[in-house]
Amino acid sequence: MNKTIRDPIHGDIKIEGIFLDFLEAPEIQRLYNIKQLGFAHLVFPGGHHTRLEHSLGTYFMSVKACEKLNLNDEEKELVSCAAFLHDIGHGPFSHTLESILRKALNVDHIDLTEKLILGKYAIFNDDEKKIIEPVTIFEILKDHDVNHHKIIDIIKGNGKDYLSQFLNSPVDVDQLDYLMRDAYYTGVAYGLIDTERFLNSLTIINGVLGIFKKGVSVVENILMARTLMYSSVYFHKTVRIAELMLSKAIELSEDFHPFEFFKMTDDELINNLKNMGVFQHEIAVRLKYRKLFKQAYAPSYVELSADHIDFIKKFDDIKFRRNKEVEFENKLSIQRGHVIIDFPNSEIRLNEPRIDKTGIIVFDNNQCKNLDDFTPISRAIRSRLITDWAVMIITDEKYRNIVSKNAEKILFN
Amino acid sequence: MNKTIRDPIHGDIKIEGIFLDFLEAPEIQRLYNIKQLGFAHLVFPGGHHTRLEHSLGTYFMSVKACEKLNLNDEEKELVSCAAFLHDIGHGPFSHTLESILRKALNVDHIDLTEKLILGKYAIFNDDEKKIIEPVTIFEILKDHDVNHHKIIDIIKGNGKDYLSQFLNSPVDVDQLDYLMRDAYYTGVAYGLIDTERFLNSLTIINGVLGIFKKGVSVVENILMARTLMYSSVYFHKTVRIAELMLSKAIELSEDFHPFEFFKMTDDELINNLKNMGVFQHEIAVRLKYRKLFKQAYAPSYVELSADHIDFIKKFDDIKFRRNKEVEFENKLSIQRGHVIIDFPNSEIRLNEPRIDKTGIIVFDNNQCKNLDDFTPISRAIRSRLITDWAVMIITDEKYRNIVSKNAEKILFN
Amino acid sequence: MNKTIRDPIHGDIKIEGIFLDFLEAPEIQRLYNIKQLGFAHLVFPGGHHTRLEHSLGTYFMSVKACEKLNLNDEEKELVSCAAFLHDIGHGPFSHTLESILRKALNVDHIDLTEKLILGKYAIFNDDEKKIIEPVTIFEILKDHDVNHHKIIDIIKGNGKDYLSQFLNSPVDVDQLDYLMRDAYYTGVAYGLIDTERFLNSLTIINGVLGIFKKGVSVVENILMARTLMYSSVYFHKTVRIAELMLSKAIELSEDFHPFEFFKMTDDELINNLKNMGVFQHEIAVRLKYRKLFKQAYAPSYVELSADHIDFIKKFDDIKFRRNKEVEFENKLSIQRGHVIIDFPNSEIRLNEPRIDKTGIIVFDNNQCKNLDDFTPISRAIRSRLITDWAVMIITDEKYRNIVSKNAEKILFN
Amino acid sequence: MNKTIRDPIHGDIKIEGIFLDFLEAPEIQRLYNIKQLGFAHLVFPGGHHTRLEHSLGTYFMSVKACEKLNLNDEEKELVSCAAFLHDIGHGPFSHTLESILRKALNVDHIDLTEKLILGKYAIFNDDEKKIIEPVTIFEILKDHDVNHHKIIDIIKGNGKDYLSQFLNSPVDVDQLDYLMRDAYYTGVAYGLIDTERFLNSLTIINGVLGIFKKGVSVVENILMARTLMYSSVYFHKTVRIAELMLSKAIELSEDFHPFEFFKMTDDELINNLKNMGVFQHEIAVRLKYRKLFKQAYAPSYVELSADHIDFIKKFDDIKFRRNKEVEFENKLSIQRGHVIIDFPNSEIRLNEPRIDKTGIIVFDNNQCKNLDDFTPISRAIRSRLITDWAVMIITDEKYRNIVSKNAEKILFN
Repeated sequence: MNKTIRDPIHGDIKIEGIFLDFLEAPEIQRLYNIKQLGFAHLVFPGGHHTRLEHSLGTYFMSVKACEKLNLNDEEKELVSCAAFLHDIGHGPFSHTLESILRKALNVDHIDLTEKLILGKYAIFNDDEKKIIEPVTIFEILKDHDVNHHKIIDIIKGNGKDYLSQFLNSPVDVDQLDYLMRDAYYTGVAYGLIDTERFLNSLTIINGVLGIFKKGVSVVENILMARTLMYSSVYFHKTVRIAELMLSKAIELSEDFHPFEFFKMTDDELINNLKNMGVFQHEIAVRLKYRKLFKQAYAPSYVELSADHIDFIKKFDDIKFRRNKEVEFENKLSIQRGHVIIDFPNSEIRLNEPRIDKTGIIVFDNNQCKNLDDFTPISRAIRSRLITDWAVMIITDEKYRNIVSKNAEKILFN
Repeated sequence: MNKTIRDPIHGDIKIEGIFLDFLEAPEIQRLYNIKQLGFAHLVFPGGHHTRLEHSLGTYFMSVKACEKLNLNDEEKELVSCAAFLHDIGHGPFSHTLESILRKALNVDHIDLTEKLILGKYAIFNDDEKKIIEPVTIFEILKDHDVNHHKIIDIIKGNGKDYLSQFLNSPVDVDQLDYLMRDAYYTGVAYGLIDTERFLNSLTIINGVLGIFKKGVSVVENILMARTLMYSSVYFHKTVRIAELMLSKAIELSEDFHPFEFFKMTDDELINNLKNMGVFQHEIAVRLKYRKLFKQAYAPSYVELSADHIDFIKKFDDIKFRRNKEVEFENKLSIQRGHVIIDFPNSEIRLNEPRIDKTGIIVFDNNQCKNLDDFTPISRAIRSRLITDWAVMIITDEKYRNIVSKNAEKILFN
Repeated sequence: MNKTIRDPIHGDIKIEGIFLDFLEAPEIQRLYNIKQLGFAHLVFPGGHHTRLEHSLGTYFMSVKACEKLNLNDEEKELVSCAAFLHDIGHGPFSHTLESILRKALNVDHIDLTEKLILGKYAIFNDDEKKIIEPVTIFEILKDHDVNHHKIIDIIKGNGKDYLSQFLNSPVDVDQLDYLMRDAYYTGVAYGLIDTERFLNSLTIINGVLGIFKKGVSVVENILMARTLMYSSVYFHKTVRIAELMLSKAIELSEDFHPFEFFKMTDDELINNLKNMGVFQHEIAVRLKYRKLFKQAYAPSYVELSADHIDFIKKFDDIKFRRNKEVEFENKLSIQRGHVIIDFPNSEIRLNEPRIDKTGIIVFDNNQCKNLDDFTPISRAIRSRLITDWAVMIITDEKYRNIVSKNAEKILFN
Repeated sequence: MNKTIRDPIHGDIKIEGIFLDFLEAPEIQRLYNIKQLGFAHLVFPGGHHTRLEHSLGTYFMSVKACEKLNLNDEEKELVSCAAFLHDIGHGPFSHTLESILRKALNVDHIDLTEKLILGKYAIFNDDEKKIIEPVTIFEILKDHDVNHHKIIDIIKGNGKDYLSQFLNSPVDVDQLDYLMRDAYYTGVAYGLIDTERFLNSLTIINGVLGIFKKGVSVVENILMARTLMYSSVYFHKTVRIAELMLSKAIELSEDFHPFEFFKMTDDELINNLKNMGVFQHEIAVRLKYRKLFKQAYAPSYVELSADHIDFIKKFDDIKFRRNKEVEFENKLSIQRGHVIIDFPNSEIRLNEPRIDKTGIIVFDNNQCKNLDDFTPISRAIRSRLITDWAVMIITDEKYRNIVSKNAEKILFN
């Protein structure tokens, strides 16, 4: 028994054995309903792809990588399982709500993935269970005698060996799929990378995963692609605004049960919002019809005075940010929830720690060196800013002028 | 004021004037939430694209066509408006529920489009209205002094002149976008056509829209692409099964108000289903987790006896089909709604009358001839079957064997 | 030792073992200098690709096919060697001069390939030999203990088993590469086929190579792609004119030694032409600067009377055609070589017998059927005409009018 | 009268008016026979494209740029003519022999282009002239009343206004075509850039051509693409070796008449080589069969001592380099011409001065700033090395060991 799935990025993906069972599991099928890029489709209308395709693609890339590196059968199975499952813990709209999850429970989607793999959490409701009679990922792994903890170690990048670098390191295969896929669906050319050449450059020497010297160019290309996708797509101003709106709606909801929320699909969350309060209902309708908040203030670092640059560091503290928002609302008679302050830098680094990790190992005649020894590009990318704005205030169009006029006065006092 | 939208198929699409207003209208924004291919993503996981992108793409193609053909400014505006708006009447999951709509009210998505353009129907609810303060398509057309009825004539293909062929004829521009787009998102190569060469082949002679003789090859290619996309994607067995399941759930619903239903987005319909009855809830959950009915009987014409081929014509009558389904359920003690009979041919022809229209006009030294005079391919395509099955019975996996065993006995008595 | 070659169609092609030796052989390196499509670049400026790339691509496709079909190691080696070598016998400008070769010696490029494999013919001159110290294909096969005759059988399609169908049958892998490649380099979209799906459809049942029923669509697509590439590219009017001009120059050359000619590369042939006589020099300069002969008469079958259609069958006889050309020249006082008559049909069928072979075997539940049982498209393609013209006369621009005026009178008397 | 040419990169390119006359001119038709990338096809077998396609593509990009920037009709004509003609002065194998030309006559391909435009040089021979009766570029420009000198100013980048930046500046349109085209034909993904977004970012403010701030990402992408193409393709080790071999053959030829040589096409040069002496004949045969010299010594800067790094600066003087080569040959009893020293850096900078020019003007709220103010990437690219080797010695395989062993001793004394 096997199945062939047609993927626009990788062509035919062949699925068999344990992976065929995964494909039937509710944790995986649910991913059809979680958009890979949250609200990116509001700016790039083609960007409707989901975590399901990305999971298949990461699996495919991991199989290719294992083949190139001649891993043994057990290693291959572990890496491929981890790749297939690495995103099952994603809540609705992928990364969008993660900062809330982190704040409420101090967990992120990787922790939820862990819980799911260990069978400590169910992604479906009881009423659904009766209908679909699911076999969970936890059970499938048990049936196939695959060690749950080894899978988790790879996903979390916990281990000390090369296996833990496949999904969570500067040379992981996860990014190969998402850069290509996000470029393809959004139509933004930056993510077009040479995955085949990258895989051919990978090698394991003395238990360390790195690249041959001949692979320096391809890695420069991938690092550049990633930073460009971050500034052009993932942290595009409008995408960010929609995400901030949804986050605020959840944050202000009175009966917010994180674990209930994180089970939901994108659609279920939006449909639930409608019944959760006036503000939540407003946000749901606004997102449906793309009536978004607007930028009222968004200076770049160049435009800020040294004092202000110093001051905005305080916004790293989310409570401080929230108090400021309330201050704006009170002083300017604005409805609750209609002023949001964004301080992107810390969040970028939390969501994607890999963006700074350009410290890739390069083997030069079997000697272990660092990418920085071969090109000035890696260093430059680390110091490149992702967003235009150092800090941003968004609000309803009707409050735009008043917020704009009072922005500096209130923000920096 | 203008806006540039990045589309993976056509590159940058520039929007200005009335089209910028359209883009803000709720009728258009809602299309972000209507999948172009219904349930095709259950088979082709990349196929999540929506009617919004297709509408933008059809608009783009129409602008190109108008330029090539040197239409005057008024004609250009009419054709481009019609192209932008031609799909606003689509209900949830596009064509999926159209046969129900037709049966209940004897209207289809084109009639709803007409109603929306004439302001006789609102796509949004009152609670939404307060929040988004919409300007409707009807009002935008009025503000810009564009004749509503001329737009409708082009969309319906009513007129006698060449304008009415732009969106509703064997050489329309609608198909240029959908073939390319559906191929791109599903990864099925068949739809890759040469739109540029096609547009260069178009001409208007004595008020008739046709192609130059040099365009015969490109048209052969497009006709072939279309028929292959029909059999491989649009009427793929599994896609069809999901559509039949949803249709049945709606059909059996007690309080089904067609006009309420057709306002909904894909997600809203699925979320509503959950509260509409046990069977409806079951179907909603099944679709979420891709637990689909299975084929129990699906003979091709070659496998049927002459008598049976004669008999199945009766299935063109939907009531006859429904009675048979109940007969299966009663005789085999199967739960209500769990046996569905598909007789695809008539529906294909209703949903896509253009599939048979290969009677394209070819100008050979200014003489008006027919495509059939230049190639045997057009005729062959007309006689090509789209589905493997002449008739198909689907059911829950647990009833599969019993239905299969009794299929011929019950079906043909 | 291995080598990776980057190909724009297939990505990285890995070469090792005997294939690495092939790559160094003069018979293969010479193919860098033989354009795949003769003079197609005069119409499609990107079409400069050579037989070298096509040979690598066919090799790559054959490896994929062998893997899908689980051939054993010996079969794999034979098929892949045959694929790599199948075009080494091509003379300058590929098919362009083949009718001359056939007329002069009753051999074609496949016979020359055979001679080269058997070591009965050398592709290089003695002066070259001293410099490059070549190891020939014949010697490489011997060194690696590969049976020369088995390779030839596969290339010629002589055998009775499935191996002989890999390179010379309606389902061969040769066409997979050339359709994709020619489409890519010329920019003509028609050749874009789904090679992966085709390979997945192939199977061997009871020693017969055929396709599964699910592969019918992909084969329809390939057959259609092929016929469209023939009419749009391979037999494009202007490409054909350049080929006819070169053929005429060779034909009228006094010291034409076929075996010497067929060793040459494209460039060497053109450079030699310059020293072979006034007319030959003229043609060489004309081809360099694209100063081509023009159509003076080119009726389609529809435009010819029944009598004339009957008459033109005589042109199948090349001597009859040549006499007519001289008659034109004498009667109209035209320089020798400046009137050429083309009667494409017979040549198309000789150059590409596969164009008519649509009789593909389809396995339906292990039963052996024919493609015609499943689709009307295959039949339609067999009756489709490739060229617009039934017969064509070309001449120097300055004689165009006079030839045109007298065409029917002289041609049909 | 117009003509449509199908290009795989840009689709249909429409040619009319003066450009149709250009297309017939011998200076343009000759470009069909000049490979864009010299010997890159020896490494990237698909890289056979010619200066003709690139000229058409640059013309196409220039038309797009002029439209975006709303240039007036006269400016449009000048820029488009300059784009179409900017490469007509290229000798055989494009940049390969330019250092010889520069050394012999102190001119480069741009100077030859100037001579051709001014009618001071003919690209064809007298015998060819009689046959093709050419109308030269000089005459066409005169017939259409286009000012020859204004065209030359744009090509040379001489002028002070924005027109002179279209073909010879860090934001020129020439690179848009060659990066895309070279990537497409070689299959190296690095050159895939977003030309549409780049053109949308261009603007002219106060007579200065620059980019909007929103265009920073797209320019970062293009600069990165360019530097990666330089190291991976244009200065690929093996490509470089073939170029050095040809250069040496020309350099050592006794009767080398630069202006005669530069008229030749690639093929004519190779065919002439065969009759120019024993060494020249050897090189011609080696290039035909790809029997290239090998690296005998090729240290990177990291591997060289500070003293040696200091010493190699002397190699900037070509005479010093040539004397060293003779020293190797004499001391090691090596045949004349069989040791070649490459010191790539100075040549890279001469051939492509634009590689250092990343000083692009960025308009931020109409203020004129520099790209370096917005991203650290431009600076990093300027300090990035193109080749792995600081200096390289190549020789016949049979001398490899002896040269290698004695390399440092002879080179640095």
